[in-house]
Amino acid sequence: MKITDIKDPKFLKKLNEKELIKLSSDIREFLIDNVSKTGGHLSPNLGVVELTIALHRVFNTPKDKIIFDVSHQSYVHKILTGRASRFDTLRQKDGLSGFQKRSESIYDAYEAGHSSTSLSAALGMALARDMNNEKFNVVAVIGDGSIQNGLCYEALNQIGSTQSKVIIVLNDNDMSISKAAGAFHNHLDRLRISKGYEGTKTKTKNVLYKIPYIGKYLVNSVHKIKHFIKKAYTKEGFLFEELGIDYLGPINGHDFKKLEKYLKKAKEAPEPVLIHVITQKGKGYRYAEEDTTGKWHGIGPFNKQTGEAIKADDGKISWSEVISSSLDRLFNDDLVVITPAMETGSKLTNFKNKHPKNFIDVGMAEEHALVLANAMSLEGKIPFVSIYSSFLQRGYDEVVHDIARMNSHVIIGIDRAGIVGADGETHQGLFDITFLLPIPNMIISAPKDSIEAANLIRTAMHTNSPFAIRYSRNSIDYFKTDIKKLKVGSWETVMEGNDATLITYGDFVNESIPLINKFQKQGINIELVNARFLKPIDEECFKRICSKNKPIFVYEESMEIGSLGSYLKTITNKDITIFGVKDKFVLQGQRSELLEELELDIPSIYVKIKEVLDNVRVRK
Amino acid sequence: MKITDIKDPKFLKKLNEKELIKLSSDIREFLIDNVSKTGGHLSPNLGVVELTIALHRVFNTPKDKIIFDVSHQSYVHKILTGRASRFDTLRQKDGLSGFQKRSESIYDAYEAGHSSTSLSAALGMALARDMNNEKFNVVAVIGDGSIQNGLCYEALNQIGSTQSKVIIVLNDNDMSISKAAGAFHNHLDRLRISKGYEGTKTKTKNVLYKIPYIGKYLVNSVHKIKHFIKKAYTKEGFLFEELGIDYLGPINGHDFKKLEKYLKKAKEAPEPVLIHVITQKGKGYRYAEEDTTGKWHGIGPFNKQTGEAIKADDGKISWSEVISSSLDRLFNDDLVVITPAMETGSKLTNFKNKHPKNFIDVGMAEEHALVLANAMSLEGKIPFVSIYSSFLQRGYDEVVHDIARMNSHVIIGIDRAGIVGADGETHQGLFDITFLLPIPNMIISAPKDSIEAANLIRTAMHTNSPFAIRYSRNSIDYFKTDIKKLKVGSWETVMEGNDATLITYGDFVNESIPLINKFQKQGINIELVNARFLKPIDEECFKRICSKNKPIFVYEESMEIGSLGSYLKTITNKDITIFGVKDKFVLQGQRSELLEELELDIPSIYVKIKEVLDNVRVRK
Repeated sequence: MKITDIKDPKFLKKLNEKELIKLSSDIREFLIDNVSKTGGHLSPNLGVVELTIALHRVFNTPKDKIIFDVSHQSYVHKILTGRASRFDTLRQKDGLSGFQKRSESIYDAYEAGHSSTSLSAALGMALARDMNNEKFNVVAVIGDGSIQNGLCYEALNQIGSTQSKVIIVLNDNDMSISKAAGAFHNHLDRLRISKGYEGTKTKTKNVLYKIPYIGKYLVNSVHKIKHFIKKAYTKEGFLFEELGIDYLGPINGHDFKKLEKYLKKAKEAPEPVLIHVITQKGKGYRYAEEDTTGKWHGIGPFNKQTGEAIKADDGKISWSEVISSSLDRLFNDDLVVITPAMETGSKLTNFKNKHPKNFIDVGMAEEHALVLANAMSLEGKIPFVSIYSSFLQRGYDEVVHDIARMNSHVIIGIDRAGIVGADGETHQGLFDITFLLPIPNMIISAPKDSIEAANLIRTAMHTNSPFAIRYSRNSIDYFKTDIKKLKVGSWETVMEGNDATLITYGDFVNESIPLINKFQKQGINIELVNARFLKPIDEECFKRICSKNKPIFVYEESMEIGSLGSYLKTITNKDITIFGVKDKFVLQGQRSELLEELELDIPSIYVKIKEVLDNVRVRK
Repeated sequence: MKITDIKDPKFLKKLNEKELIKLSSDIREFLIDNVSKTGGHLSPNLGVVELTIALHRVFNTPKDKIIFDVSHQSYVHKILTGRASRFDTLRQKDGLSGFQKRSESIYDAYEAGHSSTSLSAALGMALARDMNNEKFNVVAVIGDGSIQNGLCYEALNQIGSTQSKVIIVLNDNDMSISKAAGAFHNHLDRLRISKGYEGTKTKTKNVLYKIPYIGKYLVNSVHKIKHFIKKAYTKEGFLFEELGIDYLGPINGHDFKKLEKYLKKAKEAPEPVLIHVITQKGKGYRYAEEDTTGKWHGIGPFNKQTGEAIKADDGKISWSEVISSSLDRLFNDDLVVITPAMETGSKLTNFKNKHPKNFIDVGMAEEHALVLANAMSLEGKIPFVSIYSSFLQRGYDEVVHDIARMNSHVIIGIDRAGIVGADGETHQGLFDITFLLPIPNMIISAPKDSIEAANLIRTAMHTNSPFAIRYSRNSIDYFKTDIKKLKVGSWETVMEGNDATLITYGDFVNESIPLINKFQKQGINIELVNARFLKPIDEECFKRICSKNKPIFVYEESMEIGSLGSYLKTITNKDITIFGVKDKFVLQGQRSELLEELELDIPSIYVKIKEVLDNVRVRK
């Protein structure tokens, strides 16, 4: 059967083991082939081929619900539910989503993008089912990284006490995005090495004799050896059982017989149950199998044969790298870089290797990262919390209640701010400005280039207040010059002009220069202002701009409601036109495509400014 | 020694047991006496008298840090650190805070108000200490309710793996605010009844033979009996030990000898340790001891002798009661009321008793409550999540990523919106509008009275979108009339007028009537508009208001940046004056006092409107 001919998962039930193994191999080939062209989450999907097939054999979807946590590992599920033919559009504008999407298929029971919602979602569906006197199964598939987020614990806590039937498949690949951290992870390690697990020959070895954990274990801590020996002889899964959830496993996630046997067992169990499945991330593709850093977790287009990334070498580097290098240049003993499991994504590995004592990966725990940082700042450290804009959303209360309320010296590096592209609406960094601006004490900044980035970090390190620095997913030129402290709240006139003013920040500053030039050629001189501080604003500069009595434009990669423009309009009654993202979630696509669609690309802005200026001339 | 003469905790180390018992008794009397006049968190503080004394005897504060989770139970700590003489100002404007406050005392190591931050804070301080090569102890005192929030799990997870020395005192009174829920709580129950704990005669009985948990246990579930028996014979604290944290206890939290013995043990331990202390909430005050509903957790002024609340019976009832009654009146099988541990605070007990199957208390788990609700809505239920404004902050990402992005039919009842008074800056509900307005798909409403509240709930139940209904901590008149569906996005003109327009919502609508009347008497007719929908706004009505070309005022109990006024100014260039909360955290005090200080009371608004209107006249 051709992969693209699959219409729905019914055919799976008729296949024998040999055919299933063949199908798995074909799916892997299909995945590698397609993702090498489109980019996407390769490793997680290669790891769950057998598991996903087994789930669709044992359960009756769409009546039974399968919820993939984060759902970046739902590609195999998408293939089995008839979406293979659209894989050439994966993560592209108007194409197949990289996550589960209810509008895409009746087989997609829930939607995500952020981690650790699947258990709460599964319980919600199960409770509704019980209230409605319906009968179906709810299965949550969750990774060993995701299950460590606090939200999951809250869900486990209720699942264990309500006893509404939910099946949790813990997909344990011992990785999360990069190497997993935390005590819970150690717990899983102990389960993995307990007598219960018979893995395949190669994988078992990987798991049993893996140096970083067990090695560290035996060497570092007498306490832990005691613990280890004790646990090896007690019942597996005690932690889950102690929370009232039956534990099955661990089992080999690439062995169809075992998977089906245990999934059936789970299906028949009267109460909530967790199956601990060990899978190998990247299985079936050499480069991904050997990956220990998370490089193959989410990847751009690559050469299948060599495993090398295909990208134009334009000499530009990512904002993440710019920030990471600047942190290294500005290093002092008090600086502590904290990340919630985004070491690889935020390019912090070099910093970690150079300054291991000043680097903390807390795992997927955004809220904890922020309170931890706040407390460290009270003890004289200078924490730099590196966090994606969309994940900072999960720590909003900790920003308000802990960091801003105590007016603490915590730097928040907001990575992936603005439009992020292929990851789509769950990952767009379009809310950070709107939720940070109303918070007292917050300093909010956005550098226009790598030089300003370093200057802002130095400024933040010397400013005893909560200090957010916002940067995008784009790549930029890297200039390594002297680093100087900026005046907090200072704006910068990038180009002079008396006919109008364009206020903008971040990448839009340099992207606006051609626009200003175009107007200049027509004899229209627009002042281009870099509002590198969104809060506090440069009141003197803004007053001067207002006093010109000429049209003011604010151009932003942010939701328009609650934006900088909205803030400026709050404090003045001047006529200001805001170009921001209108009140809709922004779907996936390339940044350039999306900006065009949102009428935030330079040609659109040109037309809109022209219109206003023409009207002004007419009125005169 | 007179309680008010205590300057610092040094004297404690010289006292013998008899003197300690006398001191405990004096402190209890002092607490009951003072809180009966000021109101405050009585029960939690009566429960930790011995524990707090023991902590200050064993540890050397302020060098050693004691972090009280939430810190509503820090009154005894405040007394022992020289603040007793200010207890008559407790929770009053410019008075002693009801929580730990760094500006108040060098003995206050951290600050809170929201739960479950103490473990992350303790670890942050411990990690900073280790990095700085300093030596001191960090102790977190946390309740059995708070430790169930996901944030704590994230912290425990890192504490167990970093092995930086932190001491956790689990203050287990088997209550949280009202009765605790969840599997973790069952785990504690099992620990409590295990062989390790020898309680005092009365308390032990309460703990051992308490019907709701152990009774339910034995009767309802064969699985659990098995579990129960198995656990009774295994090591206590396995769950914590499994996370890498040594477990001590459970011990009687009113027994000085035991407390000190175990606290010293904890102090000497090389690695993180948790002491499980059983205390009796409300100990020493009959009415509080007998409380099972949480009534005595936080209380207003009361008669010491009778235990009866002292309040003017003005016939008004709280907004919480209004909403709860309306939910009952509008009940249908699909409605599910979900609360994160605020059954008592949000007056939901009657609803729960009448509709037990349609009521879910998830415990202190705001994030989980929202995802659970979202999933239930996808299965056809109509969840009403009842949540305080300031606690909704902790679920911000779940509102954006889950509920709004999927455009789900979830009703969010935002309780305690606006100024809350005595709880101060951690509890003010002043950010909800600012963080909700920029989120697409959200409907945001605020009723002006009990009739409109019921109408809005009915409207929400029939509107297939995320629907927030915002109400305050104030008391209002309760009218029980027919309930009708409103047009989503409709505003209402409460008083006609052509000289200006005042747009407001919630309690401010009726509170503004005397203001409008005062102007009317001077021949100035101001239109009073009830913007009961903050989003979507009534575009037709707003257009009409703008077309009058008269001054527009927006009057709000919200942060001004990001407010409704700010939103209206974003979409128009009309001259609008916003009266909102300026860019500062609002401290404790009575609402009327705070409104005055913020210049948001009616006399201040009168002056400001007058000024604008006079200017307009002058310009003419």
